[in-house]
Amino acid sequence: MLTSPVVNTYPLSSYTFGTKEPNMEKDTSVADRLARMKVNYMKEGMRTSVEAILLVQEHNHPHILLLQIGNTFCKLPGGRLKPGENEIEGLKRKLSSKLAANSPSLQPDWKIGECVAVWWRPNFETLMYPYCPPHITKPKECKKLFVVHLSEREYFAVPKNLKLLAVPLFELYDNVQRYGPVISTVPQQLSRFQFNMIST
Amino acid sequence: MLTSPVVNTYPLSSYTFGTKEPNMEKDTSVADRLARMKVNYMKEGMRTSVEAILLVQEHNHPHILLLQIGNTFCKLPGGRLKPGENEIEGLKRKLSSKLAANSPSLQPDWKIGECVAVWWRPNFETLMYPYCPPHITKPKECKKLFVVHLSEREYFAVPKNLKLLAVPLFELYDNVQRYGPVISTVPQQLSRFQFNMIST
Repeated sequence: MLTSPVVNTYPLSSYTFGTKEPNMEKDTSVADRLARMKVNYMKEGMRTSVEAILLVQEHNHPHILLLQIGNTFCKLPGGRLKPGENEIEGLKRKLSSKLAANSPSLQPDWKIGECVAVWWRPNFETLMYPYCPPHITKPKECKKLFVVHLSEREYFAVPKNLKLLAVPLFELYDNVQRYGPVISTVPQQLSRFQFNMIST
Repeated sequence: MLTSPVVNTYPLSSYTFGTKEPNMEKDTSVADRLARMKVNYMKEGMRTSVEAILLVQEHNHPHILLLQIGNTFCKLPGGRLKPGENEIEGLKRKLSSKLAANSPSLQPDWKIGECVAVWWRPNFETLMYPYCPPHITKPKECKKLFVVHLSEREYFAVPKNLKLLAVPLFELYDNVQRYGPVISTVPQQLSRFQFNMIST
């Protein structure tokens, strides 16, 4: 309990990147997205989603992998669980759909590690909080972030409509304008980890 | 690894608060403080400090205990370790000096729990970061934050020049102006915990 968890990080250059067919967003606007959320909530109850923090190193500093849509918006790989789906299995499924080649033999070995943050959406709005606000008895979404321990070598296949970026922690920190409240505080959530930066 | 750690939180009203002699700040200005840090660094090397997150509940929402100095500045209880001192023993010593009565029989049972964040000071300046910035080979301070698991009842003795406040997570969140970068992101660092709020 009192020792720091360790994450091995390998150089970005030890991974191979290819492309695959586009993975289109289901919604074309924030309003559409919130409306779809509402419809799903009526059918299935609270939305549960899972996202991955995939770490690599460059110049002896940890970087996380983000998917960029268009020119500015970045997100962590992950997504919504099916009703009743296990978090770990669901995150593996989502990671394969977003970042792996279609061939079953080319699936990365997704080692899902520590949960580092939990965010709550109290209403059908974009705002989320790192706690369930007082007086909210029926939150609309609970999103969990997990560290994923990558192996030394992997092949990633990135949907053609997205770009995969390795962003240093120092770029994310205190940069809510660009990365939003969830991603910009990932450096704080990772601060308790000890990074074992391996140069291969 | 994959289940949320649990923190039992008890109502603020289950704790008793008294006062004790003032615990004066060693420095009267930020410049004095940074100058003293520099002198100590020359003698002892990197400063290591430890701070505690003490949790209580009010209205079914977690609150953390902060020490207020004067009218605005708030800090977590804790302080600097002696050279070579164990983190856990050092934090217990600091908590007793800041929050316990002088009588050895009235010491709270400080159960030091999970490390939730680590902050680095690269230079003799006020700025700290949740990672050691690239190219910094000799950081000047490393500060660790630990969750402390309080028992159901305790007696706290607060130095007369300080006020002890129970501040809700929703007040800290996104409030860097008032609480600074370290304390204002405590809600994110606690989000992975499951609070077992006990009403006694």
